[in-house]
Amino acid sequence: MERPIDPEVYRQAAELRGSLRRFMRRSEEVAARHGLTPQRHLLLLMVKGAPDGGERASVGDLAERMQLAQNTVTDLVARAEAASLIARERDLRDGRVVHVRLTAEGERRLAATVGALEEDRAALTALVRSFTPGA
Amino acid sequence: MERPIDPEVYRQAAELRGSLRRFMRRSEEVAARHGLTPQRHLLLLMVKGAPDGGERASVGDLAERMQLAQNTVTDLVARAEAASLIARERDLRDGRVVHVRLTAEGERRLAATVGALEEDRAALTALVRSFTPGA
Repeated sequence: MERPIDPEVYRQAAELRGSLRRFMRRSEEVAARHGLTPQRHLLLLMVKGAPDGGERASVGDLAERMQLAQNTVTDLVARAEAASLIARERDLRDGRVVHVRLTAEGERRLAATVGALEEDRAALTALVRSFTPGA
Repeated sequence: MERPIDPEVYRQAAELRGSLRRFMRRSEEVAARHGLTPQRHLLLLMVKGAPDGGERASVGDLAERMQLAQNTVTDLVARAEAASLIARERDLRDGRVVHVRLTAEGERRLAATVGALEEDRAALTALVRSFTPGA
């Protein structure tokens, strides 16, 4: 028999899950309004918000951070490039590595989407901050 | 021209999105290990973690909190009932309202899943708490 779970843990886990679903749904609506599918929105965000601040990413980085297969990311990148939302560039030091960057149009759509979701991100983070730590 | 977005906003939004995806993926793996599809896991959690602490919910409540159509929830409830994970009961004061509760087997599988995800929830909430408020 495992240790019983506190009712507050269930309540918070349910609230977190409900909020994540509302957030993802709102995010899809807002991205669509700016001409981005959920996957393209995610792709542009992962490139622009790269952890090192370089505003670029390799397909390998993206696959890891998007939790998608490398083939899927390669296809997604090719289609976003065809739609003029991103551009590829070779690494100057290692020619085998290809990085992806946003085009001006990609920047514009992502900025509009991320800007319009400001309150939704704030609501989600406020909820998480309100949780009893360790409950 | 809209107000430009701080690079830190992109970085945090990307990190949040990446963490949510890892969390959802882990959650699916753990639920599957305990014989729950992602939707059943969500259903059981939403019933057990009802906001009023009553550990029961109506189909209407669930549709709102799961962000699903009422028909979809009705089907999901019927199948989870057939699998002996939940049971339906009529409201004593209003016979038109049907509430859903977990069976002992539903409780057991949900507890195992929620218990195994404790560290993942903690990691996600710690990340969100680490964000600069309002960035």
